[in-house]
Amino acid sequence: MRFSPLVERLMEAFRVLPGVGPKTAQRMAMHLLERDREGGQRLAEIVSLALNEVGYCQRCRTLTEQPLCALCESPRRDDALLCVVESPADQLAIEEAGGFQGRYFVLHGHLSPLDGIGPEDIGLDQLEARMAEGGIREVVLATNPTVEGEATAHYIAAQLAEQGVTLSRLAYGVPMGGELEYVDGGTLSRAFNGRLPFRSE
Amino acid sequence: MRFSPLVERLMEAFRVLPGVGPKTAQRMAMHLLERDREGGQRLAEIVSLALNEVGYCQRCRTLTEQPLCALCESPRRDDALLCVVESPADQLAIEEAGGFQGRYFVLHGHLSPLDGIGPEDIGLDQLEARMAEGGIREVVLATNPTVEGEATAHYIAAQLAEQGVTLSRLAYGVPMGGELEYVDGGTLSRAFNGRLPFRSE
Ligand SMILES: [Zn+2]
Ligand SMILES: [Zn+2]
Repeated sequence: MRFSPLVERLMEAFRVLPGVGPKTAQRMAMHLLERDREGGQRLAEIVSLALNEVGYCQRCRTLTEQPLCALCESPRRDDALLCVVESPADQLAIEEAGGFQGRYFVLHGHLSPLDGIGPEDIGLDQLEARMAEGGIREVVLATNPTVEGEATAHYIAAQLAEQGVTLSRLAYGVPMGGELEYVDGGTLSRAFNGRLPFRSE
Repeated sequence: MRFSPLVERLMEAFRVLPGVGPKTAQRMAMHLLERDREGGQRLAEIVSLALNEVGYCQRCRTLTEQPLCALCESPRRDDALLCVVESPADQLAIEEAGGFQGRYFVLHGHLSPLDGIGPEDIGLDQLEARMAEGGIREVVLATNPTVEGEATAHYIAAQLAEQGVTLSRLAYGVPMGGELEYVDGGTLSRAFNGRLPFRSE
C-alpha cells in the first residue's frame, strides 16, 4: 500500500522544492491535507500568481511584478555607482548589509559555457546598453567568489574595459568558494567598503 | 529594501509548510522564480487539485479521492480485524512494517477536550456504526503512545466494552512519547505481533 494516487502525486510535487526529500514531502502533504487546507489553497494561488506575474525589472533585471522595481524608481540612489550581482538574493544581502547607495544590475546566474549559458543569457547586452547611456562612474563586480563568479566578473571587466569607468570587486573578506547570500552583514559591509580596483589579469 | 510585494507574499505563503522558516521560504521562492517555474506551476496545480479532491474514505476515513480507498476495496484483507490509527501516515507505517492483514479505521487526530475535539470530530460515531454491522472479532487500538493517544484508546475501549470484541494495544516496544509515523518497521512489526489485551484501567 501507498497513499492514494492523488496524494502520492501531491507528495511527489513537493520534491520540486530545494532540500525536500521523500519524508519531508510526505510531512508537507499530510500537514496541508490534515491540518491546513485553507493555507494550502492560499499557497497554491500565490505560487501560481507569482510565477505568472513576477518578471524582470526592465532596467536592473531584478525580480518584480512591475515594469520597474522600487529601487530603480527611487530618486535617492546614486546613478554613478552600479553593482552587478548574480541573483536577487545577493542584491538583498548587500542591501541588508547597508552602506551601498548606488544602483544594481542582476545577472540571474553566471557564464557557464558547458551549460550553454552565454553573455546574453545573463543580460550582458542589456548591461552594455545601460553603460552606453553614460553617467556611470564605477561598476562594482559583486559576483560570487566562486570560480564561475570570478570568470564572469573577468568577462564583464573585459567587456567594459573601453568604457572609461572604474571597475571594482568586493574586498576579500567574503569567504572564497562561498555564496554571497549566506555571508553575514558585517563581513559583507566591510568587504563592500574595502572594495579594490578590478584587475583583468 | 525587501523583495517586491508579490515575491514577499510568495515567501510568506511557504511558511504554511511545516519546518519552513524565513530563510528556507526565501530559498524556495527564489528557486521556483529563478530556476523552475514549470515545476512550480505544476506544484500549484496539484496542491489545489489535491486539496479540492482528496477527502475521507467513506468506510475507514483514510485520505482518498475515491468514495472508498484501495484497502477497503481489497478482497484480500481480514474483515474480522480492525486497526484504529490516528493518521494516514501511521496507517502507512504499519502497512510498510508488514504483518497486519486486517482493515483500518483512521481518526485524524485524538480526543483533545481543551481544543474542543470530541468523539464525533475523530469519527467515533462512525466507528460505532461500523462495529454494529458485526463481523469484527478484534480491534487493535494503535493510537500514538502519547498521553493523548492513550486517553483516546481508553475512551474507545470504554465505548466498545459492550460489543464483545477483543481489544488490543500495540506491545510496548514502540517508544513512549513517540509518534508511530517515525518508528522503524522492525520495531513496529514486533510491537504488532506482540500486541496485548487492552485493559481499561
Ligand atoms: Zn530595477
Ligand atoms: Zn477505506
